[in-house]
Amino acid sequence: MKKFYFFVFTVFFSCAEQPNLESETPRIKMLSTFEVALDIKTQEQLESEFDSGLDPKNLDIWMKHMSSKPHHVGSPWSKQNAEYAANKFREWGFDSEIETFDVLVPFPKVRKLSMVAPERIELKLFEPAVEGDLSSAMTENVLPGYNAFSADGNVTGELVFVNYGIPEDYEELKRLGVDVKGKIVIAKYGRSFRGIKPKVAYENGAIGCIMYSDPKDDGYVVGDVYPEGPYRNEYGIQRGSVLDMPTQPGDALTPGYAATKDAKRLSKEEAPTIMKIPVMPISYGDALPLLKALKGPVVPDSWKGGLPITYHIGPGPAKVNLHLEFDWSLRTAYNPVGRMIGSVYPDEWIMRGNHHDGWAHGASDPISGMVSLMAEAKAIGELTKTGWRPKRTLIYAGWDAEEPGLLGSTEWVEYYRNAIKENMIAYINTDGTGVGYLSMGGSHSLEKFVNEIIRQVKDPIHDVSLDNRLRSRMRLREYNSGNYNSEKESDRNDLRLYPMGAGSDYTAFLHHAGVPSLNMAFGGESGGGSYHSLYDTYEHYKRFSDGKFDYGTTLAKVNGRLVLRLSEADILPFRFVNMVDNIGSFISDNKKLFRDVQNDTQLRNSLLDNNDFTISQNLKKTYLAPERLNKVPDFNFKPLDDAFSRLTSSAWRYEEALLKYKKGSLSAEKKSEINAFLRKVDQAFISEKGLPRRKWFRNMLYAPGYYTGYGVKTLPGIREGLEERNWNEVNLYINEVARALDRASNNINSVIRILNEN
Amino acid sequence: MKKFYFFVFTVFFSCAEQPNLESETPRIKMLSTFEVALDIKTQEQLESEFDSGLDPKNLDIWMKHMSSKPHHVGSPWSKQNAEYAANKFREWGFDSEIETFDVLVPFPKVRKLSMVAPERIELKLFEPAVEGDLSSAMTENVLPGYNAFSADGNVTGELVFVNYGIPEDYEELKRLGVDVKGKIVIAKYGRSFRGIKPKVAYENGAIGCIMYSDPKDDGYVVGDVYPEGPYRNEYGIQRGSVLDMPTQPGDALTPGYAATKDAKRLSKEEAPTIMKIPVMPISYGDALPLLKALKGPVVPDSWKGGLPITYHIGPGPAKVNLHLEFDWSLRTAYNPVGRMIGSVYPDEWIMRGNHHDGWAHGASDPISGMVSLMAEAKAIGELTKTGWRPKRTLIYAGWDAEEPGLLGSTEWVEYYRNAIKENMIAYINTDGTGVGYLSMGGSHSLEKFVNEIIRQVKDPIHDVSLDNRLRSRMRLREYNSGNYNSEKESDRNDLRLYPMGAGSDYTAFLHHAGVPSLNMAFGGESGGGSYHSLYDTYEHYKRFSDGKFDYGTTLAKVNGRLVLRLSEADILPFRFVNMVDNIGSFISDNKKLFRDVQNDTQLRNSLLDNNDFTISQNLKKTYLAPERLNKVPDFNFKPLDDAFSRLTSSAWRYEEALLKYKKGSLSAEKKSEINAFLRKVDQAFISEKGLPRRKWFRNMLYAPGYYTGYGVKTLPGIREGLEERNWNEVNLYINEVARALDRASNNINSVIRILNEN
Repeated sequence: MKKFYFFVFTVFFSCAEQPNLESETPRIKMLSTFEVALDIKTQEQLESEFDSGLDPKNLDIWMKHMSSKPHHVGSPWSKQNAEYAANKFREWGFDSEIETFDVLVPFPKVRKLSMVAPERIELKLFEPAVEGDLSSAMTENVLPGYNAFSADGNVTGELVFVNYGIPEDYEELKRLGVDVKGKIVIAKYGRSFRGIKPKVAYENGAIGCIMYSDPKDDGYVVGDVYPEGPYRNEYGIQRGSVLDMPTQPGDALTPGYAATKDAKRLSKEEAPTIMKIPVMPISYGDALPLLKALKGPVVPDSWKGGLPITYHIGPGPAKVNLHLEFDWSLRTAYNPVGRMIGSVYPDEWIMRGNHHDGWAHGASDPISGMVSLMAEAKAIGELTKTGWRPKRTLIYAGWDAEEPGLLGSTEWVEYYRNAIKENMIAYINTDGTGVGYLSMGGSHSLEKFVNEIIRQVKDPIHDVSLDNRLRSRMRLREYNSGNYNSEKESDRNDLRLYPMGAGSDYTAFLHHAGVPSLNMAFGGESGGGSYHSLYDTYEHYKRFSDGKFDYGTTLAKVNGRLVLRLSEADILPFRFVNMVDNIGSFISDNKKLFRDVQNDTQLRNSLLDNNDFTISQNLKKTYLAPERLNKVPDFNFKPLDDAFSRLTSSAWRYEEALLKYKKGSLSAEKKSEINAFLRKVDQAFISEKGLPRRKWFRNMLYAPGYYTGYGVKTLPGIREGLEERNWNEVNLYINEVARALDRASNNINSVIRILNEN
Repeated sequence: MKKFYFFVFTVFFSCAEQPNLESETPRIKMLSTFEVALDIKTQEQLESEFDSGLDPKNLDIWMKHMSSKPHHVGSPWSKQNAEYAANKFREWGFDSEIETFDVLVPFPKVRKLSMVAPERIELKLFEPAVEGDLSSAMTENVLPGYNAFSADGNVTGELVFVNYGIPEDYEELKRLGVDVKGKIVIAKYGRSFRGIKPKVAYENGAIGCIMYSDPKDDGYVVGDVYPEGPYRNEYGIQRGSVLDMPTQPGDALTPGYAATKDAKRLSKEEAPTIMKIPVMPISYGDALPLLKALKGPVVPDSWKGGLPITYHIGPGPAKVNLHLEFDWSLRTAYNPVGRMIGSVYPDEWIMRGNHHDGWAHGASDPISGMVSLMAEAKAIGELTKTGWRPKRTLIYAGWDAEEPGLLGSTEWVEYYRNAIKENMIAYINTDGTGVGYLSMGGSHSLEKFVNEIIRQVKDPIHDVSLDNRLRSRMRLREYNSGNYNSEKESDRNDLRLYPMGAGSDYTAFLHHAGVPSLNMAFGGESGGGSYHSLYDTYEHYKRFSDGKFDYGTTLAKVNGRLVLRLSEADILPFRFVNMVDNIGSFISDNKKLFRDVQNDTQLRNSLLDNNDFTISQNLKKTYLAPERLNKVPDFNFKPLDDAFSRLTSSAWRYEEALLKYKKGSLSAEKKSEINAFLRKVDQAFISEKGLPRRKWFRNMLYAPGYYTGYGVKTLPGIREGLEERNWNEVNLYINEVARALDRASNNINSVIRILNEN
């Protein structure tokens, strides 16, 4: 999974300059899901029984067991955990099986990194056991620090420090007169999916890439380090995949189709998403002598990390040798899947998923989320003991091989593509989870629905609803940032779902198949630096995260309600007023970006005309003027504005129709017609055209950034066109998004028509 | 002198939400000083001859000599330097003498600091010589690291880390549940005048105060350390005074009157500006083991420094013993003063000053500025060789004992108080100076005048005017901060002078006597961490600052023009349109602050009503809710607005009168009448009432912050009333400032009347 701070980032991102329709007086009253589609008493009874089937002790027992040994895909304990979960599902009343795919996952064979000049230093590349953590001493089958899908290679070159190694850092390097061609770069982890760093390094001519966790981002600057505190110590190495997931996740050898036993496979050399240069992660303890040995320009202020040195860029005189070889075998990914067939709508599927593979002992990532999912499945199982059956089909899955590149879930989606299109109502994802505040991402057609639930579920420690606690934090943040505006995000009727990029198993569902998806977790108070290291253990989790499994149990309450209401509602709880409010803010954001790009271009060029970059130059330092920019055309946003206004109208007319609708008055046939159209609203955002340079990503509303990887880009066709100055793409996707919005309007209009005919 | 980054801060500070009158179409054309008051040809000839009398080599020779030995007040070399300067002045044609005062300056006798728990560590408290810097090996008579005006004492207590040790940090400590009563605090240097830290520590009950330079602010995080680079190394100690200068600078035993030999003196115990607890500065090398040994809460993010540790607050378990004793003798301050009596207006004085005392070898601070002043005096001396004499009296002074508390200049102003009121036209200060951009602070009645000069003087390296270079940097900064507004500060007709707080010898002139003052220096590209350490040497300055003395010579060109035009102009070059534009922005800033205080109060109280501070609390950590705030009354700004509008009208009517005035048509008598009124405009801002709790500070427009020390507060009576929630003061000073503005208007109106009668 990705790290929590990206969540925060995306939330911030979406809050700029939005029209915030909902904070205006609502046009009409909006009914709740209870009022529209559920028998309140029955449902409340059901949910209360569900709650009583949850027991934090189970989560503890299951985590202790499942995280007791390393369980990456291909390891014995991963298979064991899959069987463990599958058996539990069966035991709890699900039809349970293990579905397998054969996926390429490289394991390290040779793993050497040394500084060869100005002096020779062999790096440790090793995480020792720490006191008080028995798991960390249990290292049989542990994969050492490495990056999956690095190239094989043995390269020697001068070192260059490239900050976070994202495109803007290379812009800065250019101005500093530093070229990475033929060099080995060293980048800090953070600010992007890690696979971006070697990809951009390669695009700029580097021959190797080292990544490390700087103590400012992930170490002693943040807080006390393990085992004294939860944060990353000087030995901790962040493992992780560098598969080019923003282009396409899933098995590298079967792009776009399922990695079944007999699938036709590309050769490794043909596979487009495998890195072209060797890549290696190290600890900050190992990074220190390398960075200390660099000379050349001092880094810009914003590049500075937390090591006790003056950070320099190089190149050299530090020179390193990086030698990596991998075992490029296929491994079997085991996805335990439990199905409970719906009693009324067996062909309508509600799916829950969480991966079960980890990089080492993986207690927090992913077992903390997996045990919450299992608690939910167990409690649902309990409900069936009294004869109850869900109206819709429930599917509980544990994904394998998430860590190397969302392999288990992506292959599953590719395998069931057609059935998913026909049958799947929603996919609810979890992954690692901790202590603190509910983090909620997802499709905005579900925003109102999610908010109804978080107003009813209580925080396990504070005596307030989850909604209340989140709003308290928002109000404090607004206060601390000196936001005294009368219109505040914290006053919005519903809290926003953050729009989702990539980083966990919802990716194929949301971005490829167009399934309305959610991603739910607790965090913000866990404090942790165990991510993808040997120290992500049961011991660490117990001491520093949700040691009593209160929040894991609360997460099950939230997700259980999501599942049970989605299952039982006779009209599916998709609602579009919140959705258009969010889409409206995406449009505003993109228009603002457009104006900023225009202004920036004009201003930069006028500074170049004035010679300001040269005149203000400190001649003791090299800092070249940036390049002149080509003119930004005036884009015509009208087709998009018009389509948005039609969609807004449909969203409100649907609410009007619901107000008029007499609950329960629909025939079974009409209901199923309505639900089919409701389900298609989100699918309307899928365009077969896909996004530029990555056809697999087909959602026109959201995508992971091509050059950020985890972080979301909203209306990505337009946004990335603006950011990368591909003006044609901007024009193309203004119209493509407009068409998608119109398809969505049409589906909503069909629902309205049927309701009004009733 | 104070450090350069404070200059930047103050400039930023004054730029918020200003009405920027000048960027509107000017109401009428504004004439230049050349057009109004000088014979252009004669003046240009004079200034060109002045320039040819400047030679960078002299600056080099004088600095090498004057910084060759430690020259703090009371040292043999300070006396020698005073005589050296006095002799030079004499040699160059000035009436030269050394004026002395006897001032209290403590020297350290016992200086011990050790950690006594959890283990015993004696701190080094010592700056070793470094390679390539012979001066740093010449340590006879060097005062070691100490803070002048610390109390004597021998205290032992638990340590508490208090960030920068300013009032807001204690607010935060309160919320973290930490009390410093009976403890010894350790504070980072920076963000305030150093004397604030022990003052606030004492107010909060601490029994001792340690201060250190954190590498993030002043060390390896900033850049390569000495001798590899210019920045502070692990041994460098920032000496400095902790006299309570924001209350009152000058000799502690003779507050408000001159420290002549026979002056009546307070006892040390009676002296209000001497610190009440022992205070000691240390290096970051010495701070490391102390901070590393602290436990307790981890510091808030914004408190984190650059040492390779997790910063904790304490209290303890680290415990320290601080033992300090001082020799509290009087020392003689030697002010060399050269006078050149004016040929036409001998009773109108133009004064230049720069201190000559340093903490150790003091090459940059203050000799770099002193040699620039001397170059100027020499070039003026050359002019007299052809028979020229200045029309007004020029006074060139070297101040002693600036470092312990602006003693030399303050006593001089107190001694000559009446004459200054009658005779002084303007005071132009310099202090340490370096490489880069002109930094210009001062009285805004001189803003237009200064701008005329910086448009004519060229940068010594870049082939553009000083004005042009400053504007290039402003435009880049605006660009980098994404400011695409059409109204930009960089488009303003004239660049702003920053309003002055305290920190160098202009203080008594500006804030006590109401003399229009300026403070000029180059900086921004020097890069330095030698401030007040053993490493502020000729070697350091040559390698890393203005080694060729190009900028020091350019500074002499600027200040020489200021002096020569002030001297020769038949109507003094005070102009008030720029002044009211600045005062208007002070008023807007204060009104914005008022609204912010109101909003903040209301919002905080409503968060308290909601219980938000508790609900959003991470229960693993102590973080108490802040206190409820009392209501902010509605202040009546109308008297101030009205007075401001009258002043604005006067400012423009003066410009109209100048447009109508026929140059040179005034009788000598009228001229002297006009000049007397012009001179009184700035004196009008002096109120005998003084500022709350510090009557010595009498300027109603500017003051150093009572709790910041260097940083300026504009309209301080109002602003500090708002900040410290003394509502009575706010009301009182709204009216007091209004009266001051009206006094100024009246003086301008008198000038207009005389001109119009002409």
